[in-house]
Amino acid sequence: MNASSVSAPRVAILMGSDSDLAVMSEASAQLESFGISSEMEVLSAHRSPARLHDFVKAAPGRGIRLFIVGAGGAAHLAGVVASLTTLPVVAVPLAATSLNGLDALLATVQMPAGVPVATMALDKAGARNAAIFAAQVLALGDPQIAEKLEAHKLQLARSVEEKSARLKEKLAASKK
Amino acid sequence: MNASSVSAPRVAILMGSDSDLAVMSEASAQLESFGISSEMEVLSAHRSPARLHDFVKAAPGRGIRLFIVGAGGAAHLAGVVASLTTLPVVAVPLAATSLNGLDALLATVQMPAGVPVATMALDKAGARNAAIFAAQVLALGDPQIAEKLEAHKLQLARSVEEKSARLKEKLAASKK
Amino acid sequence: MNASSVSAPRVAILMGSDSDLAVMSEASAQLESFGISSEMEVLSAHRSPARLHDFVKAAPGRGIRLFIVGAGGAAHLAGVVASLTTLPVVAVPLAATSLNGLDALLATVQMPAGVPVATMALDKAGARNAAIFAAQVLALGDPQIAEKLEAHKLQLARSVEEKSARLKEKLAASKK
Amino acid sequence: MNASSVSAPRVAILMGSDSDLAVMSEASAQLESFGISSEMEVLSAHRSPARLHDFVKAAPGRGIRLFIVGAGGAAHLAGVVASLTTLPVVAVPLAATSLNGLDALLATVQMPAGVPVATMALDKAGARNAAIFAAQVLALGDPQIAEKLEAHKLQLARSVEEKSARLKEKLAASKK
Amino acid sequence: MNASSVSAPRVAILMGSDSDLAVMSEASAQLESFGISSEMEVLSAHRSPARLHDFVKAAPGRGIRLFIVGAGGAAHLAGVVASLTTLPVVAVPLAATSLNGLDALLATVQMPAGVPVATMALDKAGARNAAIFAAQVLALGDPQIAEKLEAHKLQLARSVEEKSARLKEKLAASKK
Amino acid sequence: MNASSVSAPRVAILMGSDSDLAVMSEASAQLESFGISSEMEVLSAHRSPARLHDFVKAAPGRGIRLFIVGAGGAAHLAGVVASLTTLPVVAVPLAATSLNGLDALLATVQMPAGVPVATMALDKAGARNAAIFAAQVLALGDPQIAEKLEAHKLQLARSVEEKSARLKEKLAASKK
Amino acid sequence: MNASSVSAPRVAILMGSDSDLAVMSEASAQLESFGISSEMEVLSAHRSPARLHDFVKAAPGRGIRLFIVGAGGAAHLAGVVASLTTLPVVAVPLAATSLNGLDALLATVQMPAGVPVATMALDKAGARNAAIFAAQVLALGDPQIAEKLEAHKLQLARSVEEKSARLKEKLAASKK
Amino acid sequence: MNASSVSAPRVAILMGSDSDLAVMSEASAQLESFGISSEMEVLSAHRSPARLHDFVKAAPGRGIRLFIVGAGGAAHLAGVVASLTTLPVVAVPLAATSLNGLDALLATVQMPAGVPVATMALDKAGARNAAIFAAQVLALGDPQIAEKLEAHKLQLARSVEEKSARLKEKLAASKK
Repeated sequence: MNASSVSAPRVAILMGSDSDLAVMSEASAQLESFGISSEMEVLSAHRSPARLHDFVKAAPGRGIRLFIVGAGGAAHLAGVVASLTTLPVVAVPLAATSLNGLDALLATVQMPAGVPVATMALDKAGARNAAIFAAQVLALGDPQIAEKLEAHKLQLARSVEEKSARLKEKLAASKK
Repeated sequence: MNASSVSAPRVAILMGSDSDLAVMSEASAQLESFGISSEMEVLSAHRSPARLHDFVKAAPGRGIRLFIVGAGGAAHLAGVVASLTTLPVVAVPLAATSLNGLDALLATVQMPAGVPVATMALDKAGARNAAIFAAQVLALGDPQIAEKLEAHKLQLARSVEEKSARLKEKLAASKK
Repeated sequence: MNASSVSAPRVAILMGSDSDLAVMSEASAQLESFGISSEMEVLSAHRSPARLHDFVKAAPGRGIRLFIVGAGGAAHLAGVVASLTTLPVVAVPLAATSLNGLDALLATVQMPAGVPVATMALDKAGARNAAIFAAQVLALGDPQIAEKLEAHKLQLARSVEEKSARLKEKLAASKK
Repeated sequence: MNASSVSAPRVAILMGSDSDLAVMSEASAQLESFGISSEMEVLSAHRSPARLHDFVKAAPGRGIRLFIVGAGGAAHLAGVVASLTTLPVVAVPLAATSLNGLDALLATVQMPAGVPVATMALDKAGARNAAIFAAQVLALGDPQIAEKLEAHKLQLARSVEEKSARLKEKLAASKK
Repeated sequence: MNASSVSAPRVAILMGSDSDLAVMSEASAQLESFGISSEMEVLSAHRSPARLHDFVKAAPGRGIRLFIVGAGGAAHLAGVVASLTTLPVVAVPLAATSLNGLDALLATVQMPAGVPVATMALDKAGARNAAIFAAQVLALGDPQIAEKLEAHKLQLARSVEEKSARLKEKLAASKK
Repeated sequence: MNASSVSAPRVAILMGSDSDLAVMSEASAQLESFGISSEMEVLSAHRSPARLHDFVKAAPGRGIRLFIVGAGGAAHLAGVVASLTTLPVVAVPLAATSLNGLDALLATVQMPAGVPVATMALDKAGARNAAIFAAQVLALGDPQIAEKLEAHKLQLARSVEEKSARLKEKLAASKK
Repeated sequence: MNASSVSAPRVAILMGSDSDLAVMSEASAQLESFGISSEMEVLSAHRSPARLHDFVKAAPGRGIRLFIVGAGGAAHLAGVVASLTTLPVVAVPLAATSLNGLDALLATVQMPAGVPVATMALDKAGARNAAIFAAQVLALGDPQIAEKLEAHKLQLARSVEEKSARLKEKLAASKK
Repeated sequence: MNASSVSAPRVAILMGSDSDLAVMSEASAQLESFGISSEMEVLSAHRSPARLHDFVKAAPGRGIRLFIVGAGGAAHLAGVVASLTTLPVVAVPLAATSLNGLDALLATVQMPAGVPVATMALDKAGARNAAIFAAQVLALGDPQIAEKLEAHKLQLARSVEEKSARLKEKLAASKK
């Protein structure tokens, strides 16, 4: 696990439709902030299983070390990816039906023994966290990413202080 | 849709483990009562995707017209079968985790547009109904099955009368 | 929705109110794309049981081979249709109350042993899939529909490629 | 609403199977305590719709004033009874599947505007309350039942005092 | 809502806030259509228990025969009314919090043995049905209401025919 | 449970039935460990509202400073107590029906603005925590209780160390 | 517990982001109406645990007697505060994700034995009630707050009368 | 569980009580099968936050690369660990209360953006998968583990064949 290539993506971000881009681009942006290059692709467990199969099988050869997968409804995409690889699969359940994502969450997280899928929170928070988690995984073999994660953790703490400052401004404004 | 062979199974009953046999044999027994021969097989979307792929692709050639699939947890088996065939897929969600089958139900029924899975009730009632539904489908091309379904419907009504009689016996006994 | 085919409808699409037309016309349009003619009717298990009874009993004589039924809330319509026929009944639960369709889903799918209802996903995805499933059933006795289903399956896979292309366009545009 | 006949039942208690007798006999026993005679019958909305139709249509002529209906799973029995009568229908959802009665509750209570079903709690508490509610309805026209309900209400309050006394005995015993 | 009837109200419609009027006036309008006069009042189990107590205790003396109660959240209003009277209490759970009415439904329907509350569907459908159910109860002692209920049942069936006609018009229009 | 302290009880522990004693005695035992004397009583919001009213109104005069209330199903007891007092009310929802306590939880926690009920976890963990929380409240005015709470917090930490030690024993034993 | 200082806050209101201010300011405004001064702060169990630790540990020394904590999603903030103090912790679960607050509710209320968190209703009603509950706790040692709570309870009852009056105005207006 | 490997543990398996050992030892056994040594410890976010803090902070120095955390109820343990480290945290929600693990699942998976927790299935399946996932992560930098994972994947596929063989034996036996 030795980081290097300037451009070859190490993380593949998969989704069932280009309409999921708004959510899943949270993941690619977050990865980019850690200097981790990623690729995004539309794939479907149900509509194009052969194309999915070929993509997942070819991914390690292209340098992919980890998959991030977003899916809604009876969300099978992450599980099917996991059935085809021994690389880590991180999933983002999407609230895409009237059941508000409970369907995607249960269909993603309740994988049977033998084929793990690492499930994150629903929607944008989950997409962001999938990227941070991917960075944590890659950081085990890449001190540069580890450093960036430490900086990110400090920045998280700072963001709370900034929110605290904004709160105090609002409160002061409301008392005038 | 022209019934014929004495023995070649027309329905494939799939499950993720031989431990599901107690539930899924409700389906095979019910099919047998309609004179429909079936075969049972253990297959897994997650643990042996290649074997599943080969089985589903070869099934029509062996005379299979319809799949009945039982699965629990993040139940993907029926959906993956449906992604590989244009034959009808009927699913039986199984209550196999502490979530009492809600996970299997949502993971089965909330399939995306394009790849239908016909979902039955949870557990034994669902396994029985999957078989009756399969018979209803096959009956469209097989008058003998259609006749047996009519007889089954009469028998259902008679079973209510039998239960009514038993109720009255119990009530009479309790008054003595 | 440019209906045409001279042939008598083979599928009856039932709903509880004309306000369900927007959802259920997904089913009729999809059937039409397979060359399967259908009819639509408003019927109610609770408000006009006699009319429903007569419709279902007369349907086979008019050539109906399969019912597609949309209903919300304590969705009984599909179950009552199934109690009156041995033809296959395919149901589309509708999210019509503040409970987001969980009521319709459970009231539809949890049918007792003996009277199956093949339940699809909630709302439009379910309506579309009900039609595809109906086509899969009819295709068992109609090679022309079977061919169209194969074409549809290829088209599904192509649609993923189109979405993939759109994704790449969006990504390229966002980098400019 | 003029009480009279010593024996003609005024309440019909319906259930889908004689196996529901243990729960539903809570209702008949409670009615009997108010001097209200009832009859019990096994009927099924799905398995014997014609028999159900005939029973409900004939009931008023035999003196039935109110229905109490127990059903589990996709519990349609009460709703179908209500579609056939203008007499009050009181329902007891039964926890009969792995979903613990949530299915029966939603399938019973979420009736569409026009056809009410008065839903009680799940299982035995609901069966008992269905009978008390039936008595409250009949009491509007029968002062004897009204008196018995007042006595029952006093007895309820007394039962709390008895439980309080038992609690104190247990506490005293535990301190020895 | 053109109130008129000189007669004293027989049904009291209670709600926790005047903001519930839009939903609960469905009940009063429906009662009026049956010639049943009703009164509406804002009462609270939690905020003004003494006023609620006095209202419920005085109601029978003023001719009230039945309560219809709408409440949301931890909906206790109907249960508290039922604890104070032996008159029938019919409840309408309201979807008033982010939990979409599941809280109100469970807090209303799961009453303990001894104190029944007849629960209707959530929101407007439930308010309408509460009124129809009240009419069914009162009709047991009032042949005029019974006749109106029969007419209402016919009108329900006719409304389905009207919806069917509208459906056909829409379909015809879409084919032009 | 070796009660002793001469002082008048400061906490009233209420429950709907003596059958809840096994759960609610967790609260009294925990209070006793803090030297806080309590009393237990069976009361019912639905079955004996007048007795409940009198008890709650008299409680402050007897020295009660806080109520702990256990209830299941449509759990109204805590809410009704809160409607009658300005003393703090702490509630323990009980899993007493087939819905596993979800009903009691929602019926307890979703109180309307104006009448708070402090809700603890379901069942025994909740009963224990209700007592600890009561002690935290009383400790604001009683340094002796505050000291005991500090000791309890240290004991909690020690209990984790004890569990850790037991874990290591078990692991060592399994390696022999 | 002896009220005094004109300005030193006795209640700390914590939240995970300044975007929660709209909800949580319901609590500060309600406290202010009882003459209880409070402070608001943004803190995070997950993003700045050290800052949270320091804040909670220092709070008693600054006169804080009670925490009110609002959090959504996997709401851990209140539990982590409770792990660090023996002061009472009151929590307001926030509906901040697509799961409508069910996640925040369960993550808040189901605390293990030993570390209580007093959970209020979701969102604004809960924020208001957290403040009233805090006042009830502080009133045990402060007769002035106790008086204000009595006045608040009378005002609650009056507000019901005002709503009743508004209802009658609306009804009168609709009859013109 | 015959531990051996001399090497320092790379995975720390944390749980809230030694009573969770039966579930969590599924993880350690699975890790051992991959030649990955692990350590197990009882820690509590709520009962001994300081001890948890020290453990997590010291873990990297001892060679820990990844945490596996099991917790039930308002399961905060994994989230608190994640707040203290940039190492990957994998969580196993445990069904430990009457809510069947839905509480633990939501309290674990719905983490806010910034602090990811990789959530596995409930209970034993989740514990097993947490270990396999940990191995997948470590395999990115350790070809020996990667090889063992490939072997495990083959073994998974073989286990399906074994189950299939057992199914056929059972079927053959039942036909004799």
